[in-house]
Amino acid sequence: MTSHTTLRVRYPEVDRMGVAYHAHYFVWFEMARTEWMREAGRSYRELEDEDGVAFPVVRAGARYRASARYDERLEVTAKLESIGGSRIRFEYELRRLGEPDRLLATGFTEHATVGRDGRPIRMPDGLYRRLSEKEMAT
Amino acid sequence: MTSHTTLRVRYPEVDRMGVAYHAHYFVWFEMARTEWMREAGRSYRELEDEDGVAFPVVRAGARYRASARYDERLEVTAKLESIGGSRIRFEYELRRLGEPDRLLATGFTEHATVGRDGRPIRMPDGLYRRLSEKEMAT
Amino acid sequence: MTSHTTLRVRYPEVDRMGVAYHAHYFVWFEMARTEWMREAGRSYRELEDEDGVAFPVVRAGARYRASARYDERLEVTAKLESIGGSRIRFEYELRRLGEPDRLLATGFTEHATVGRDGRPIRMPDGLYRRLSEKEMAT
Amino acid sequence: MTSHTTLRVRYPEVDRMGVAYHAHYFVWFEMARTEWMREAGRSYRELEDEDGVAFPVVRAGARYRASARYDERLEVTAKLESIGGSRIRFEYELRRLGEPDRLLATGFTEHATVGRDGRPIRMPDGLYRRLSEKEMAT
Repeated sequence: MTSHTTLRVRYPEVDRMGVAYHAHYFVWFEMARTEWMREAGRSYRELEDEDGVAFPVVRAGARYRASARYDERLEVTAKLESIGGSRIRFEYELRRLGEPDRLLATGFTEHATVGRDGRPIRMPDGLYRRLSEKEMAT
Repeated sequence: MTSHTTLRVRYPEVDRMGVAYHAHYFVWFEMARTEWMREAGRSYRELEDEDGVAFPVVRAGARYRASARYDERLEVTAKLESIGGSRIRFEYELRRLGEPDRLLATGFTEHATVGRDGRPIRMPDGLYRRLSEKEMAT
Repeated sequence: MTSHTTLRVRYPEVDRMGVAYHAHYFVWFEMARTEWMREAGRSYRELEDEDGVAFPVVRAGARYRASARYDERLEVTAKLESIGGSRIRFEYELRRLGEPDRLLATGFTEHATVGRDGRPIRMPDGLYRRLSEKEMAT
Repeated sequence: MTSHTTLRVRYPEVDRMGVAYHAHYFVWFEMARTEWMREAGRSYRELEDEDGVAFPVVRAGARYRASARYDERLEVTAKLESIGGSRIRFEYELRRLGEPDRLLATGFTEHATVGRDGRPIRMPDGLYRRLSEKEMAT
């Protein structure tokens, strides 16, 4: 199951070379991940504020294939690649809107599961089930 | 040869969990890379503005081991890990200032070499020599 | 004539107090201004890239009335408040989407008109007319 | 009493025109304000974490006189302009390091005083005294 998020490249996201700065891609990835969670039935905000569960990033990576430029409309997809007792891995793809065959970038993030005090916890059962089911849905 | 850069975690770099947001680490890595280039005898600004050479990021990755928090003083080290005709790879380590034995994060970036028009070029000989020599220096 | 832009507060835009960091409001204002220009018939990107005209900010201000929080959907409105030979002033209002009666923030930006070399120029006649007409439209 | 903070303009702080993006100045102002507070004997982090007092921005403004560019070293000064029972106003000046006679920008921020729950409070007496004394010091 893949979530799609669209965005327009903002002026301050572009560097003096006129292309989107590489660190911002991780922000865009997060926007897609946030939508993925929301579609899985529980927003990231609810998870943090109500369930006391957070998913800090423990690894992240990106491969940049072609530049994104100011004011371009982009589409980011996120999908849950794997989920274990306390680890989640998401993968991302970035394209220009309307150019489905041309990847601008790919990336991934791996997350731990922590409680309110920042210490690792097992993922709550209900959450694990909900995420796994969305992962499986086709 | 390693370059050291220090910084203090800024208020807007910290998220609602009170820890530095993962994308900003790539900005910090860049600050250390910039210093590395400067120490190698040619600032990144001179390279772009005078030599017409830029080094866009083609891959980047980070592993987050422990959190950095608001107002903490950090030290980032950068070193050139490899250099080919048109590729450069830097590696980074992040620590709290005064805590040399505790890694907060590690990371890397790989860069292409492009000219003013954004197209790949071989690295100019003089630049290649200068960077290689700094890489070798011990 | 007012332009409306919607956005969702991003995770890294929120600080450790859980509210949107004040500097980001100016980015949101710019998003609304960009849409205003686009609706006036010429995108900011076209102005910079094709016409060689840019509008650097010379003054900016904001009044923060109520907090915006993570994941909230906001609406920003921009309107051209005045336009002279070389100065433009925009005003902004920020609200939660669906809460039209409650202002979260107001702001303004004043812009100079500069050419490709960064020096002040009079605004090109065609552009002046187009912007003035949109200003007048009701 | 004025606090001085130095910084180097970062790559992602510069826009496609090659100059520092206007919203980032407010981040730099905050860095100087943070140092001012630290020199007044209580860091902003301690205030928030230990005293449960925060100073959200209620108004902010800047006047941009000349551009700051990538990799330039800047100096920001902050001074407390006024302090009342629940309001504080800081003023800022931005210059290139080593160019004391040329202002790049000026700005101000006004802050409310709030407690842990985000509601306005009177400033604690001890804090008020400490800040007022630093304001008076010459």
